[in-house]
Amino acid sequence: MSNPAYDPRAPGLRAFHDAVAGFIDGSDTPVKYLERCLARIAEREPTIKAFVWSNLDAAMGAAEAAAKRYREGRPVSPVDGLPIAVKDIFETRDGPAGWGSAHLAETPGVRDAAIVAALRRGGAAIVGKTALPELGFGPPAATTNPWDGARTPGGSSSGSAAAVGGAMVPAAIGSQGKGSLTRPASFCGAYGFKPGHGTIHRGGDGGSQATNTHVGVLAGSLEDSWIIARFLSATAGPHPGGFAINGPMAPPDARKPKTLIRMEGPGWQRTDEATKAAYEGMLEAIAGTGVAVSQAADDPDWSAIEGEMAAAADALSAIADFESRWPLILYLQRDHDEGTNAFDPLTHERGLARLNVTRGEYQDALRYRLAYRARLAAAARAREGVFLVSPAATGPAPEGLNSTGSAAYQWASSLAGNPVMSLPFMAVDGLPLGLQIQGFGGGEESLMAACGWLDAAFKAGEI
Amino acid sequence: MSNPAYDPRAPGLRAFHDAVAGFIDGSDTPVKYLERCLARIAEREPTIKAFVWSNLDAAMGAAEAAAKRYREGRPVSPVDGLPIAVKDIFETRDGPAGWGSAHLAETPGVRDAAIVAALRRGGAAIVGKTALPELGFGPPAATTNPWDGARTPGGSSSGSAAAVGGAMVPAAIGSQGKGSLTRPASFCGAYGFKPGHGTIHRGGDGGSQATNTHVGVLAGSLEDSWIIARFLSATAGPHPGGFAINGPMAPPDARKPKTLIRMEGPGWQRTDEATKAAYEGMLEAIAGTGVAVSQAADDPDWSAIEGEMAAAADALSAIADFESRWPLILYLQRDHDEGTNAFDPLTHERGLARLNVTRGEYQDALRYRLAYRARLAAAARAREGVFLVSPAATGPAPEGLNSTGSAAYQWASSLAGNPVMSLPFMAVDGLPLGLQIQGFGGGEESLMAACGWLDAAFKAGEI
Repeated sequence: MSNPAYDPRAPGLRAFHDAVAGFIDGSDTPVKYLERCLARIAEREPTIKAFVWSNLDAAMGAAEAAAKRYREGRPVSPVDGLPIAVKDIFETRDGPAGWGSAHLAETPGVRDAAIVAALRRGGAAIVGKTALPELGFGPPAATTNPWDGARTPGGSSSGSAAAVGGAMVPAAIGSQGKGSLTRPASFCGAYGFKPGHGTIHRGGDGGSQATNTHVGVLAGSLEDSWIIARFLSATAGPHPGGFAINGPMAPPDARKPKTLIRMEGPGWQRTDEATKAAYEGMLEAIAGTGVAVSQAADDPDWSAIEGEMAAAADALSAIADFESRWPLILYLQRDHDEGTNAFDPLTHERGLARLNVTRGEYQDALRYRLAYRARLAAAARAREGVFLVSPAATGPAPEGLNSTGSAAYQWASSLAGNPVMSLPFMAVDGLPLGLQIQGFGGGEESLMAACGWLDAAFKAGEI
Repeated sequence: MSNPAYDPRAPGLRAFHDAVAGFIDGSDTPVKYLERCLARIAEREPTIKAFVWSNLDAAMGAAEAAAKRYREGRPVSPVDGLPIAVKDIFETRDGPAGWGSAHLAETPGVRDAAIVAALRRGGAAIVGKTALPELGFGPPAATTNPWDGARTPGGSSSGSAAAVGGAMVPAAIGSQGKGSLTRPASFCGAYGFKPGHGTIHRGGDGGSQATNTHVGVLAGSLEDSWIIARFLSATAGPHPGGFAINGPMAPPDARKPKTLIRMEGPGWQRTDEATKAAYEGMLEAIAGTGVAVSQAADDPDWSAIEGEMAAAADALSAIADFESRWPLILYLQRDHDEGTNAFDPLTHERGLARLNVTRGEYQDALRYRLAYRARLAAAARAREGVFLVSPAATGPAPEGLNSTGSAAYQWASSLAGNPVMSLPFMAVDGLPLGLQIQGFGGGEESLMAACGWLDAAFKAGEI
């Protein structure tokens, strides 16, 4: 069965945020909304394979309870009744957190991750848990790209991006260490919102405690990505030591950005020509609205930061690899020592390679990160209304399911810990491609306001 | 049965570090060392009640394996064959992590905490897990003070301190959020070493991820406290985002401190007269060796920092309370919602009170902590060989088992995240009292060198 070509202007599943008015006036209900999702799941999931576990009875129970609250005029949160999927790294009481491993999925869950507890408290209907490569870096999941079943959905938030791109749910929780959220968002045609590092509690994400891991949202609409992230930051709270997302619970008012700085860095030379053309065309259209679009090279501060992007990628890699020693690499060592062969040989190979990062290299990378973040923050402080822009991927989703594609456009902003949005505005060869906009520390609201303006301009056909 | 009076100069269990020479020349073995511990456990544990769980067969198996390695001249680490107890907040594969709760202890363990995995890899013999108050802040455990069964051992590292003070094991792992390690060390007559924040991996400590929690060591000797902490920082690694302890794997050479700054702060007015007298006497003896002992008030920097101690305590409390929302308070909320009554009413009362800290107060406290740490680091940078000194507690262990005593002397250094040592040098009314020495960020080695000098002077009768 051939898939329809991706049309970034074609409506997908109705945004949850837009449906709420109907819940209140009675023309729609969370139960009906969920039923529409379940119909899509029945249709698409056999091909897409986004889910590794689901509890549809519990989801329907949550939707019914929410429906009752809307009828009584007292929804408990902006996500009351929201059908949502959760990446399978998060602990839940009613199912295992498998981290893409059948072996780990044998251990039943005993508590809810912080974000899962918050979603339940807010009345959301957790539809299921979504696939990822084994331990995040091993063999990819069976999940396919919703726009072409022979292509990867990206990773490691593979199932979350595919479930949203396939319009099976309005939103899903993902996470990004190196490049695991805005890249699959780009490949699958979803909005991908990675708020700044530490803005959302990671408790119960499998215990990796990696300091570059961000919790984020993949959604079919910009508004839903905001209301969910903002709600989680307030209710699950920021991660210990982090600062919460500021701004209104509802999407902030759109605000036209002043300047987009092109910050492509080392990803550019890996980017295919069709993608470059689509991106240049999009930037030209944006410039046509009066938003300044300039090269990093035109400003000594941004130029210096672009010059750091390769080093930033190396530091990120050292940090992420070293910090996976507990518990992920420990699982592999135990598997090896005990001869249980519970994990794939490729996962072992990649996991053991991570042990090559020494403690000294790790500590140097942490120091580099501190300095890099300080430099970025200093550059941003002097410039109001400025954002960094790049493609969200080096091309549309590559063919084959054995690789999840290049994360070159994610590395630097992952190290920076800055808020990033991937806007699913472009199509290349009938496949989705994201426009990636990077804000700065503490600037989720202004990033979202700027993206709100771009989203409205895009929907109005102005860009 | 009445206990003997505490004599800080009386030899306890032979230090593990000192026994290793015997393991190598064959005059002693890790099995015999463990057997001496087991004999002490058989004698003292019925009264002290330090342990909530043990696996003595596994411990003996580890000691036998270590004995074989020493015979073959190839011990694998400085802790090979070390009998050690672990606070019952840490996950272990062979037993539950109960957090002082019978309810949580129902869930079997599936993986080892980072420090537990490191101890096993290093050949240590994990004797058992030690008691703490329910969730750390609820009703105290049944553990009694090894020097007076009618008194508290302190908390929350109650069992770890009592097991060491009772000479049942040479060392135990504890943790300190607000004041949970050097205070019980003081009450029980143990060396209490809290290395700087983040120097030892906290992965698997029950998932609290609290940013003021430190992993530390209670030990019968200064040397053992160093070799264990240094080993864990190297092998479990620093906590993600943290920096490891520098210095040799063996205890660093003793180095006479230049100056001890008296930094008693708000704990002083709560301190009883006998304790003040013992402390003044100890400082006088130290000054007699040529170490300068001065008042914080004599220096504007230290005076300003002492003036901040009450505010620092408030910030610490806000941070620790807010960060316990996931998962600790979540357990209580679930217990309440489901009517399972699995936790004590006092735990509920104290846990729910923690919810009074607002997100805004928490974020302000984080900002305060950043500024406070920067001020302390700036003051320390200008002064080589300087340490802060205070009593480790407002008095000897108070009577009764319903309270674990005051942590007033721990609050400021807990917020600072500085390395701290409690030296069990004093006796008041036949009970132990610690001398608390605080170093500065990254200064574990210099703190240990200074404490090594003080320890040698103490043992030589010079102080």
